[in-house]
Amino acid sequence: MGTDRLKIGVMGASGYTGADLVRLLLCHPHAEIALLTADRQAGKAYETVFPHLAGHGLPPLVSVAEADWSGLDVVFCGLPHGTTQPLVAGLPDSVKVVDLSADFRLRDPAVYAQWYGHGHQALSLQAEAVYGLTEWYRPAIREARLVANPGCYPTAVLLALLPLVAGGLVDPDALIIDAKSGVSGAGRSVKEANLFCEVGEGTHAYGIGTHRHMPEIEQEVAAVAGRPVAVSFTPHLLPMNRGELITAYVRLAGGAGPDDLRAALADRYAAEPFVRVVPAGVSPATRHVRGSNFCHIGVFADRRPGCAIVIAAIDNLVKGSSGAAIQNMNLMCGLDETMGLGQLALFP
Amino acid sequence: MGTDRLKIGVMGASGYTGADLVRLLLCHPHAEIALLTADRQAGKAYETVFPHLAGHGLPPLVSVAEADWSGLDVVFCGLPHGTTQPLVAGLPDSVKVVDLSADFRLRDPAVYAQWYGHGHQALSLQAEAVYGLTEWYRPAIREARLVANPGCYPTAVLLALLPLVAGGLVDPDALIIDAKSGVSGAGRSVKEANLFCEVGEGTHAYGIGTHRHMPEIEQEVAAVAGRPVAVSFTPHLLPMNRGELITAYVRLAGGAGPDDLRAALADRYAAEPFVRVVPAGVSPATRHVRGSNFCHIGVFADRRPGCAIVIAAIDNLVKGSSGAAIQNMNLMCGLDETMGLGQLALFP
Amino acid sequence: MGTDRLKIGVMGASGYTGADLVRLLLCHPHAEIALLTADRQAGKAYETVFPHLAGHGLPPLVSVAEADWSGLDVVFCGLPHGTTQPLVAGLPDSVKVVDLSADFRLRDPAVYAQWYGHGHQALSLQAEAVYGLTEWYRPAIREARLVANPGCYPTAVLLALLPLVAGGLVDPDALIIDAKSGVSGAGRSVKEANLFCEVGEGTHAYGIGTHRHMPEIEQEVAAVAGRPVAVSFTPHLLPMNRGELITAYVRLAGGAGPDDLRAALADRYAAEPFVRVVPAGVSPATRHVRGSNFCHIGVFADRRPGCAIVIAAIDNLVKGSSGAAIQNMNLMCGLDETMGLGQLALFP
Amino acid sequence: MGTDRLKIGVMGASGYTGADLVRLLLCHPHAEIALLTADRQAGKAYETVFPHLAGHGLPPLVSVAEADWSGLDVVFCGLPHGTTQPLVAGLPDSVKVVDLSADFRLRDPAVYAQWYGHGHQALSLQAEAVYGLTEWYRPAIREARLVANPGCYPTAVLLALLPLVAGGLVDPDALIIDAKSGVSGAGRSVKEANLFCEVGEGTHAYGIGTHRHMPEIEQEVAAVAGRPVAVSFTPHLLPMNRGELITAYVRLAGGAGPDDLRAALADRYAAEPFVRVVPAGVSPATRHVRGSNFCHIGVFADRRPGCAIVIAAIDNLVKGSSGAAIQNMNLMCGLDETMGLGQLALFP
Repeated sequence: MGTDRLKIGVMGASGYTGADLVRLLLCHPHAEIALLTADRQAGKAYETVFPHLAGHGLPPLVSVAEADWSGLDVVFCGLPHGTTQPLVAGLPDSVKVVDLSADFRLRDPAVYAQWYGHGHQALSLQAEAVYGLTEWYRPAIREARLVANPGCYPTAVLLALLPLVAGGLVDPDALIIDAKSGVSGAGRSVKEANLFCEVGEGTHAYGIGTHRHMPEIEQEVAAVAGRPVAVSFTPHLLPMNRGELITAYVRLAGGAGPDDLRAALADRYAAEPFVRVVPAGVSPATRHVRGSNFCHIGVFADRRPGCAIVIAAIDNLVKGSSGAAIQNMNLMCGLDETMGLGQLALFP
Repeated sequence: MGTDRLKIGVMGASGYTGADLVRLLLCHPHAEIALLTADRQAGKAYETVFPHLAGHGLPPLVSVAEADWSGLDVVFCGLPHGTTQPLVAGLPDSVKVVDLSADFRLRDPAVYAQWYGHGHQALSLQAEAVYGLTEWYRPAIREARLVANPGCYPTAVLLALLPLVAGGLVDPDALIIDAKSGVSGAGRSVKEANLFCEVGEGTHAYGIGTHRHMPEIEQEVAAVAGRPVAVSFTPHLLPMNRGELITAYVRLAGGAGPDDLRAALADRYAAEPFVRVVPAGVSPATRHVRGSNFCHIGVFADRRPGCAIVIAAIDNLVKGSSGAAIQNMNLMCGLDETMGLGQLALFP
Repeated sequence: MGTDRLKIGVMGASGYTGADLVRLLLCHPHAEIALLTADRQAGKAYETVFPHLAGHGLPPLVSVAEADWSGLDVVFCGLPHGTTQPLVAGLPDSVKVVDLSADFRLRDPAVYAQWYGHGHQALSLQAEAVYGLTEWYRPAIREARLVANPGCYPTAVLLALLPLVAGGLVDPDALIIDAKSGVSGAGRSVKEANLFCEVGEGTHAYGIGTHRHMPEIEQEVAAVAGRPVAVSFTPHLLPMNRGELITAYVRLAGGAGPDDLRAALADRYAAEPFVRVVPAGVSPATRHVRGSNFCHIGVFADRRPGCAIVIAAIDNLVKGSSGAAIQNMNLMCGLDETMGLGQLALFP
Repeated sequence: MGTDRLKIGVMGASGYTGADLVRLLLCHPHAEIALLTADRQAGKAYETVFPHLAGHGLPPLVSVAEADWSGLDVVFCGLPHGTTQPLVAGLPDSVKVVDLSADFRLRDPAVYAQWYGHGHQALSLQAEAVYGLTEWYRPAIREARLVANPGCYPTAVLLALLPLVAGGLVDPDALIIDAKSGVSGAGRSVKEANLFCEVGEGTHAYGIGTHRHMPEIEQEVAAVAGRPVAVSFTPHLLPMNRGELITAYVRLAGGAGPDDLRAALADRYAAEPFVRVVPAGVSPATRHVRGSNFCHIGVFADRRPGCAIVIAAIDNLVKGSSGAAIQNMNLMCGLDETMGLGQLALFP
């Protein structure tokens, strides 16, 4: 395309994911934000809801019912899980869609029904949807009309582990993932569990054995392993706004050692603009990717023979959500994949 | 004993562990703080170093060289690792000692030398020292003159796992422990890594595969398992002052399920004043033990067949250090074990 | 009284103030918690709502309508402002009441109506209520049946400033108070403004020129000054759970200097168990009173001639609420005023 | 200039200010980082010191003694106060300099000597230096060879107050400024006071009546007022990485009201790209400018008649330091002033 700007809509623009989409799109040289929806905040100026984004002439928030989709090139859906399927089905065919909810991530409707408690409501769209882990589905994303943006935890887990499973370097049946996340991963929904005093100065695990990102991880590991797998995945809530760290405990396979794993990752991601394999001995830290679209991955020897530790860090709202969504949009629209994503990490 | 007060010395009283000892001892009905040492702060009033403990008529800080040990009943050593051995060797025989450093925790001098890089300097004392995990060594602690207070991580790990290993409910060769700690675990030493901005709003793993609490954990698991074991142990630093959470991924043995593990723990700790096994479905949180001597333990099913997840939470400075030390002192001196340790958790 | 325990009820026990009352009362040697109410959580075990207080055999939560007041000696009301007046009016006369809401703090019903938007609903009780700033109303509190516990901000402000106004050392018409508070001051109510991500890593002022603690401060300053006053009071929200710091900018009067102010405060509070005037040059810090019933006060020279700076730190939930309430209960019931309030500050 | 890139050196590149300069310069379309100095880290790769800036081909750190200044267009000095004067004096005349220390901010050498305890070491350079508050000294900055970048606190204070003093709307002799800052303002220097546990979960004032930003504020207020002034300025440390909020209590003059103040600010800054006057009722928050070069200013009525409250928020490392420095560099080099400074605030 030329210098024309894509006309973009953001559904669910009053959440943290929506705000980070807007933050990044405002710096994107080929994007124009034409529509912002938020049912409960409809009628408000966007800067009333997010004062940090004031002064950019953004359109006011409207309800989905009031939205005018005509002329839009791309719509990002940042709505709560379970609400997106009928909405996307109702969009004009001409609109490309990046869905940031979980609604189109699981290819098998039976798995979806099992984990979400109701049947999928847009099966033909599901069949068409491409799983948006850019580094693994780039060709399909380029051609897609509907991309299911990965969950934040799956993004970090899969970037760290898929090359190792693919290379036969680790046993896909013995993956144990201990995950840590900042509170923005829970969104802006008003729940007691997300109050400052319920999270500040402490930590705890949640969704133990039941977190919905588990089937998503399993789907993609299984796709690479060539057979069903069950992974152990336990997320923890940390007293910080942004950031996600996954510590994966893996059993080595095929005679590989930690250095082989690191080499395989470095090789796989050598040409990737947003994945960085850190040197031996460097511990990936969420603060080193805060606000950026980067994923840092490190590999360490485990004390147990035949085992290793793989650690990955992302910003859950950027590479784990809005940044990856824009990366996918760029691909879908024929733009340079890195466009609008050049912001470096904010440390400290 | 009667209502007489124990005369107590605290070595290394200018650190966080020392401060928490003083905080707790000031509320102990049979303790009198008679000596406070801190070489670099010698000569200062204690409230200059810790204003939160002002107004209690505490003795001023003196150097170890100036210290008068005569008349002391108990000395707590809260000095950096590697400095305590000669000092304890020089104390009068009449003084009972609770050492909060790692200097006397490892029974095998070869293991000590391997992990600490120099030979042990007080081998006969080491032979005499009792490992101070109260719930497991209570009879020996009662008779001990020198107690090696456990490390903070080992305390949480061992309380959670020893009953399961002892009962043959989990495989001791497949223990994977992902640990999370607040920054006070690093003490008050002035290092760049502990600056607010290096820790705030982020997380990272440290000491991966090399943390010195690993051999301590292995020593005690091996003692119960009856053979050497190697554990996987990876600590993470979290942006909070206090609190330690360990998430242990275990392989079930002997046909046991998660409920069996929980029952075994509940049974083992039924009479323990400071260990609480939380109900099924409740996730232990560090904020629920903050400032208290409690350890909360929970058990969860893992998604992988034949596996489970055991989680324990403590305050690293209390049950993980100073509180346990006072618990041990009470035992060593024939007092009620819970004396001075009744403070409840400070939440929020 | 003898060793009998006071039978105590806590209304609004599911809030942070309620939890801190329970935390402190469980360590009080003459208190027995006999009733806990929380309308929305009625029927639940207390440890479900506050796991940090599990294991003490507390009564289950009941609704106010179900509550049995018979046999109670004292009731603490920790309910939202505006709901307490009819409830207290309905309690048996034999029950002493410490109200932690704002409902009985303002003596002038017209001022109450102006700031709370509706007429007072229990005027005769209001006439009877004693303002519970212990250090200033001790004799009346001893005789009171109903004590209106002060707000957290007024507590810190008044302890710092009343002796100076009373002594003619500062101009009561030029009091500027910049206040900073942790988030627990907002209670456990579920509002977007109190979500972790809305507060973490940032600060802002709120209630500027409109905060309801302003008339309360003015009432008490005026009582001492002998004429109406208007104060400037601006609170700020800080990313921490507990703690309140007030920085008061005062104009000196009567030829006084900063040292005179410090001496007047030290003199006034010399016999007070919970107020500590810190030495010249020491900056009061909220972390030095965290979890304790202490108030630390410091005085500093200002660069502007004829002015000074007075700083006070409290824990908003303890001296600013629950601790002060128990201090008042002790007085009302003829107990040692400090009973149950011996916990020292938790630092770090 | 054309598309050529400025060759840039950063002295003191291992501090937080240095890192934020590098972060911003890497996104600047006309900047090339050619030299990075850090005496204590000389010889290290930059990404060893700041992993969040890895992968950009930055030059390694060298000592000042080893530095090659030839060919440089601009040098930023981010060194500790008191060390810059001789270094700048030794740079080639062809190099433009933006100094981020306090070394050239005070025009009067006597005031400098009084506050810094030693005589100025480069008086002729001082005479030439332009105070770099861009919005007030833009024409002089364009022509300057040496710009003294303002302190973080003075930046927020002066942007908020200078238009009001200049317009005769407030009394310059009654300015009371209560300031709050994140810990990064203290730099990366390793001091006990900046340890996580000394700052986390608490707040306190520091430098009361003695902070060196006071004479800098007074110098600029006096320049506008036309006569010497003394201001009250009290900074507080908050448990957050970045962000600075100043709450100024002002006495109204010339019959002005709060709305007049807001209007005067809005008028003064209408064309400014980085200063935003927020609507009535909106409270400026540091989180709304985090990571960006913006300053938000709000005005509120005070309860005291004839007074008002002016609040300003900046990111201390960006608009308070590195961002402003680049803004000045752009002016000095004839570039668009906003170049490289388009990053929006990172919230949450």
